[in-house]
Amino acid sequence: MLNRVRSAVAHLVSSSGTQSQRPKSPDLPNTTSAPSSAPETPRSPPARSGREAGAPPKTAETRASFSRPTFLQLSPGGLRRADDHAGRAVQSPPETGRRLPWSTGYAEVINAGKSRHNEDQACCEVVYVESRRSVPGANQGLCFYYWGLFDGHAGGGAAEMASRLLHRHIREQLKDIVEILQDRSPPPLCLPSTPGTPGFSDHSHLVSPQSCWSPQKEVTHDSLVIGAIESAFQLMDEQMAQERHGHQVEGGCCALVVVYLLGKMYVANAGDSRAIIIRNGEIIPMSREFTPETERQRLQLLGFLKPELLGSEFTHLEFPRRVQPKELGQRMLYRDQNMTGWAYKKIELEDLRFPLVCGEGKKARVMATIGVTRGLGDHNLKVCSSTLPIKPFLSCFPEVRVYDLTQYEHCPDDVLVLGTDGLWDVTNDSEVAATVDRVLSVYEPNDPSRYTALAQTLVLGARGIPRDRGWRLPNNKLGSGDDISVFVIPLGGPGSSYS
Amino acid sequence: MLNRVRSAVAHLVSSSGTQSQRPKSPDLPNTTSAPSSAPETPRSPPARSGREAGAPPKTAETRASFSRPTFLQLSPGGLRRADDHAGRAVQSPPETGRRLPWSTGYAEVINAGKSRHNEDQACCEVVYVESRRSVPGANQGLCFYYWGLFDGHAGGGAAEMASRLLHRHIREQLKDIVEILQDRSPPPLCLPSTPGTPGFSDHSHLVSPQSCWSPQKEVTHDSLVIGAIESAFQLMDEQMAQERHGHQVEGGCCALVVVYLLGKMYVANAGDSRAIIIRNGEIIPMSREFTPETERQRLQLLGFLKPELLGSEFTHLEFPRRVQPKELGQRMLYRDQNMTGWAYKKIELEDLRFPLVCGEGKKARVMATIGVTRGLGDHNLKVCSSTLPIKPFLSCFPEVRVYDLTQYEHCPDDVLVLGTDGLWDVTNDSEVAATVDRVLSVYEPNDPSRYTALAQTLVLGARGIPRDRGWRLPNNKLGSGDDISVFVIPLGGPGSSYS
Repeated sequence: MLNRVRSAVAHLVSSSGTQSQRPKSPDLPNTTSAPSSAPETPRSPPARSGREAGAPPKTAETRASFSRPTFLQLSPGGLRRADDHAGRAVQSPPETGRRLPWSTGYAEVINAGKSRHNEDQACCEVVYVESRRSVPGANQGLCFYYWGLFDGHAGGGAAEMASRLLHRHIREQLKDIVEILQDRSPPPLCLPSTPGTPGFSDHSHLVSPQSCWSPQKEVTHDSLVIGAIESAFQLMDEQMAQERHGHQVEGGCCALVVVYLLGKMYVANAGDSRAIIIRNGEIIPMSREFTPETERQRLQLLGFLKPELLGSEFTHLEFPRRVQPKELGQRMLYRDQNMTGWAYKKIELEDLRFPLVCGEGKKARVMATIGVTRGLGDHNLKVCSSTLPIKPFLSCFPEVRVYDLTQYEHCPDDVLVLGTDGLWDVTNDSEVAATVDRVLSVYEPNDPSRYTALAQTLVLGARGIPRDRGWRLPNNKLGSGDDISVFVIPLGGPGSSYS
Repeated sequence: MLNRVRSAVAHLVSSSGTQSQRPKSPDLPNTTSAPSSAPETPRSPPARSGREAGAPPKTAETRASFSRPTFLQLSPGGLRRADDHAGRAVQSPPETGRRLPWSTGYAEVINAGKSRHNEDQACCEVVYVESRRSVPGANQGLCFYYWGLFDGHAGGGAAEMASRLLHRHIREQLKDIVEILQDRSPPPLCLPSTPGTPGFSDHSHLVSPQSCWSPQKEVTHDSLVIGAIESAFQLMDEQMAQERHGHQVEGGCCALVVVYLLGKMYVANAGDSRAIIIRNGEIIPMSREFTPETERQRLQLLGFLKPELLGSEFTHLEFPRRVQPKELGQRMLYRDQNMTGWAYKKIELEDLRFPLVCGEGKKARVMATIGVTRGLGDHNLKVCSSTLPIKPFLSCFPEVRVYDLTQYEHCPDDVLVLGTDGLWDVTNDSEVAATVDRVLSVYEPNDPSRYTALAQTLVLGARGIPRDRGWRLPNNKLGSGDDISVFVIPLGGPGSSYS
């Protein structure tokens, strides 16, 4: 995520005076529209549930310092090596220690000096969801497997906080629907009162679909899980907004999350990380990237409908390059929020403003500042040399795709690969698929170290090796100078025994 | 398009007092942002260009009466038969008359009595685009082939007007870029002053890309054509708004348009008609439908950002069914503009309002009124028993897909099929592909009547035959009671000689 926020660090202020001036994000519903479980949102540090693994809650002081995922089990010396820009040692969980759940492979490497610390964070957990109901004989709770990659920018605070708490928000959201998910009948459209009230413990109080008058939409169990994940992302973002002053939640982060629940993988992506499945050599995209280019029309529409968000500094129109004052009256190519093609328009005074969306590829920016349009945090992010907030243009909502593990036969070489953009900047889906094939064929199908070896190879291959003026790939192209983090999740083989 | 506007006809008022009260469509850019060629928009009746075929401009009186496409060459008796709901005779251009350009096949049938007249309209033309430059020795003009299907609702006025004028708007937009499209070098980002001014006739006055400072976006020739089509749709819609009182432009229409220019097919769709290519038996979708369901999140976002558009009658939130007053305080499934999944929320007073988007499938509606979310016209459309305008939620912009004819070898059985929703309501892509195979195999590849025979078979197959209580399909399912119009455009064979 390096280079994705231009000059933003200098403008991250923890001013208490700006909060009230900041317009409420138009992407967020009113508080009254938010899921009513908001008051039960876990707070930092949250109470830990019985079967939940993970790091103990940290105090504000320790959190402000550099940290790596606890599953790496780094000693103080190991932590220093992981933080060394010159060596760029690839980090993985130790072979001798506790393995990651689901035989997951993991590897990471710090950037080549572009930021002080590795701003990526990761989480891999088995999470138990207890029902809010506590009646004897009621259905049991549920377990979900959870993987999260968080690619921080303009500081590591948001990524670190998300890696500690997002799965707990998901757990809280799922608590409401534990029984519903385990019941084959369609979800009830309506539930009496708030969860946890006495009435809720009586199953007969559920308003059955039959009692609702037609027509009514069919709501699937899948879409309840998707809704729970979406709500959890929103509540995580709101928590960051609330705690940004007291606990120094600096910067923002992309979030790529996988939830395995009841036979299905839910892949939720907000940002420019990427998930792909390699199944029998075939590539199945499980996410798409959210950038100023891919979300141009959403951003422009918002700027058009809410021009106050642009101040007097920006125009919602896009031009192929910056318009110059001497071109006033001439006709230049442009496109607005409705257009995918280009047309000519006569240049007027307002068109001399800086375009809301500019640049191409990795250099594309919103308000000349940020290169990614979805994620968590960034509540303090302002336009360079301005008080104009950028957060209203950013969405904290992920796109969730579902993969039904039970629909396919999987072999031990079928994997789901998650990587931050540091990986994908210098490689592509096909190259990763080729590496999957090459590396896994060397290891026995039941060798527990094969998926971590694959993750390490992917990270090493994207990082390159030090040669004159940079980390070079075998083809002498420049390797990724960014932080790189990779999860490899087997869809068949040893991991599937967990399902 | 029948049933797509519920009770709307009764509320189509041509009141002069409501125009100023209607909020400006937030989907439309300010006039200052519109392409500067707006003053040159053809007006109704427009001047005809030399090589342009088509019906002579009609007066307001003839336009208000029932009409069918002129290429059907209907006599007064034929027009009456085409307007007969009981017989539902399939109409095609006469075999003995002038054939449609590009060996195009066409067939249509009126609905089964749901509206007084057939509200579909169609247009098939070869259009010559003259450059605005008139210097001797300059590049010559360009021809494009044009097919348009217009599926009217709440009256036939908008569809009739669009079938007469939309291709002329496209021609006007292309006039600006005739030389640019014929020049292999990248389009100039900037042109001096307005088109047609003396300076424009001097090619050296074009600001070359080299003179622009980097970085600049690369703009393709394709995207200029797409931009021209998008702008033409917008100007057509604006013209309908301007003329809605004087000339009774009643109702609205979906528009599905194909432009063949310089080796490529540009397929532009605004509404719920559909285009597919059948190539060597393979189905290639060339459009997608824009309905309250497919555009739910766009509609909800607009309602959320501009709540004044909802009055006090609607909520932007979606529920699986209408919320009842007795459910206040209970928790019901909902989703907002950011969600694809469902979650529970506590029902509040505002949630008792009617949902902005409701219903499923063919019964989905915006503001309980209209079942399609893109198209032309509908400027007078109001919510039933209300003055709330619906137009702000409708977009006049098409999605344009490009198919490069030169990239593939085509055989005479490869076709592009365009159909209004009357066709697709009772059949699907695979059945259409099977019919293409079955019918074309009967005819010689160079038989000029084969594509019209195919269009007729498709219309007949979707209409069904009269049996007790309705027009039945062979499987005894109810056939389409809607107007049906179908173009069949050969991609190889006799038609390709035009390219």
